[in-house]
Amino acid sequence: MSTEQGGERAKLSRRSLLGAASAGTAGLVVGGLARPLVSPWPEDSPAAPASAAASPTSYPFFGAHQAGVTTPVQEHLQFAAFDMLEGMGRRDLESLLRDWSEAAARITQGLEATAAGALGGDPESPPEDTGEALDLQAAGLTVTIGLGPSLFERDGVDRFELAAQRPPELEPLPPFDGDRTQVGLSHGDLGVQVCANDPQVAFHAIRNLARIALDRASIRWSQAGFGRTSRTVATQGTPRNLLGFKDGTNNILAEDDAELERHVWIPSGSKPAWLAGGTYLVVRKIEMLVEAWDREPLSSQQSIFGRAKGTGAPLSGGDEFTAPDFAAKAGGKDAIDPASHVRLAHPSNNGGVRILRRGYNYVSGVHPDRRIDAGLLFIAYQRSPSQFIALQRALATDKLNDYISHIGSAVFAVPPGASEGGFVGEALFG
Amino acid sequence: MSTEQGGERAKLSRRSLLGAASAGTAGLVVGGLARPLVSPWPEDSPAAPASAAASPTSYPFFGAHQAGVTTPVQEHLQFAAFDMLEGMGRRDLESLLRDWSEAAARITQGLEATAAGALGGDPESPPEDTGEALDLQAAGLTVTIGLGPSLFERDGVDRFELAAQRPPELEPLPPFDGDRTQVGLSHGDLGVQVCANDPQVAFHAIRNLARIALDRASIRWSQAGFGRTSRTVATQGTPRNLLGFKDGTNNILAEDDAELERHVWIPSGSKPAWLAGGTYLVVRKIEMLVEAWDREPLSSQQSIFGRAKGTGAPLSGGDEFTAPDFAAKAGGKDAIDPASHVRLAHPSNNGGVRILRRGYNYVSGVHPDRRIDAGLLFIAYQRSPSQFIALQRALATDKLNDYISHIGSAVFAVPPGASEGGFVGEALFG
Repeated sequence: MSTEQGGERAKLSRRSLLGAASAGTAGLVVGGLARPLVSPWPEDSPAAPASAAASPTSYPFFGAHQAGVTTPVQEHLQFAAFDMLEGMGRRDLESLLRDWSEAAARITQGLEATAAGALGGDPESPPEDTGEALDLQAAGLTVTIGLGPSLFERDGVDRFELAAQRPPELEPLPPFDGDRTQVGLSHGDLGVQVCANDPQVAFHAIRNLARIALDRASIRWSQAGFGRTSRTVATQGTPRNLLGFKDGTNNILAEDDAELERHVWIPSGSKPAWLAGGTYLVVRKIEMLVEAWDREPLSSQQSIFGRAKGTGAPLSGGDEFTAPDFAAKAGGKDAIDPASHVRLAHPSNNGGVRILRRGYNYVSGVHPDRRIDAGLLFIAYQRSPSQFIALQRALATDKLNDYISHIGSAVFAVPPGASEGGFVGEALFG
Repeated sequence: MSTEQGGERAKLSRRSLLGAASAGTAGLVVGGLARPLVSPWPEDSPAAPASAAASPTSYPFFGAHQAGVTTPVQEHLQFAAFDMLEGMGRRDLESLLRDWSEAAARITQGLEATAAGALGGDPESPPEDTGEALDLQAAGLTVTIGLGPSLFERDGVDRFELAAQRPPELEPLPPFDGDRTQVGLSHGDLGVQVCANDPQVAFHAIRNLARIALDRASIRWSQAGFGRTSRTVATQGTPRNLLGFKDGTNNILAEDDAELERHVWIPSGSKPAWLAGGTYLVVRKIEMLVEAWDREPLSSQQSIFGRAKGTGAPLSGGDEFTAPDFAAKAGGKDAIDPASHVRLAHPSNNGGVRILRRGYNYVSGVHPDRRIDAGLLFIAYQRSPSQFIALQRALATDKLNDYISHIGSAVFAVPPGASEGGFVGEALFG
């Protein structure tokens, strides 16, 4: 096979060239090639290919923690849950995690999935990269790999000789009031969260991980997302969910090391040792009954959330970031309904429990009854699944439940980041 | 109801404020508020909310032609086909087209769907805008409205007293070899193409048009798209489809007035008069068998397309924009396979027929058999459906057909643009 920078192909592929320049850098690569999405000169065409030209940001794959947890939330999501194929054993899983990590380390730097890539291998063999991201940059791509409960034991069978290393907390989430979870939209041996600022870069990542997995694992379910519904750094504005409300106002921020250590990262010294520095990932596919919601009066919508739709301020007053005052009265009644979403979910109502949210809106066409099929792929990171479980139980009486429906559910243990040249989950195979 | 700029709400809603500033401008609004997607200063966070801040471009809704046909192709698509509800008559259709046009004229300028919008109406009534785009700008939004054959006659019934005005060419596309079209992914009384540089702005548009239509029409099918697969202006790079190849190299460009007049716009003086200045929209949902394709050798993939995967150059040599030489030989054989896609689709093989393409890639999770559900929402504009029909028939022997499957099909007559204060299709109701 030819080398990365070799000959004809390097001339063809901006992706290869850019990748070669940025590969191996340890820090955040940003700036040099940045250009405005829209030209500041009105006589210019506004039609430059935004995604291709404007997304050179890259995040390192290797590090103490996996990227994609506290990374500033990118614009697009592809989430996929994989199942190992029947007959696969411990070495197959190990090799898959190694191959995925190698590919992820490359594509997150704007490189192709392998050195040969889409164009550089034997032309009589299938390409080693599917090619649809050839002209695109890293686009802030992150790949975050999690391990599901079934990987450690399924129906009493220890398929991968991992049962002894199973964290006691890693088990399917319990049923919650009102759940309508479907098996085909839930669970998975492996969960992969891909985030990027270009949807084609995000899809390319999932597709190439699936291609690499071909004889070892298959996709169980997947979901594309857009319009991130959280912020993870203070400079990100708070986006809106498809109910029209700001979502994620009080999220834990990446700048808040103390809160991350307290609520998100599993501390060193904890058992099992392979998960120290990792976290737990909870995914819930939450369908929103948007037509029913759109028929609710504004006053009712705001009462249900406990916040003003415009500003995001709590109904007790102030601005978006003012702490809600649950004792405040308005016209002789509670300013914030005791059954409102903001109160039930608030840390003060839940013994201080917090989670790091990272959800995305989704749209999947229309249902057979012609309702819009849309909602939220809720994604949260926490050092114990018990945090999510406690919060979700507190929402049992949430008035919002009349307009949403949990149709998918999964939990994954997210190992710490791989060290340079290593792979995610390596400590499991010592 | 309060006025647009009135009081508290204007302070809350950047969208309202921006919209108020740009509403009514006749030309392209671009520039003043533009800012880089990624900061050129490395010490800045790269995490500013790109979609909200970087997309002030707006295109006028009113004009000789509808926007969204020759408009520089935006990054995201929402396409929806609607059916009028049973019992609806001529006045219901007229009022719907009027209401849609009024809303489209507003939202394409970054305004809310009505003057009262999400926050300014009676708080005890449902909001008149769903709110998820409150903080977002126009994002290059275009709304393009088409009229399906069934609107003019369905099962012999003239529901809307329009049969006399039906263009003879407006009928469902004929079946083509290999078609696997599904009724639930095909047809529609009305077709709405929404394009924008922000997926949340695009979804907001379709959702609010559906909300406005609530008692008059329902969504029959819809599809989100990303990664435009064509360019319509010379400054746009040629993007790649999900087979990894550049797609749309030889598309008609918006700068090429002569070719647009010849192939796309229906000339003044033609019959029926209400369609002069309009065009025909063909939509085909084309599933791609990506796993099968990914197993093909590079040489085979290139032979099927007739182009190099990297550069997009024809296999007869040159660069992406070199004209293919179908007589060229390589190693004693045709350099470009006579059954290749580029040759079969080429104007020189089709009596000079050209169409204006505007397709988008799509991904919809996985099939029950765990294959990736992805492909191309093919969209083309032409002055006669016969152009698409001729080209599609020429592709009957295309080797690419082994890797793609046409699963949805629709055709719509696209009226000319509305004049200021008028509505799309108004000439039908004189």
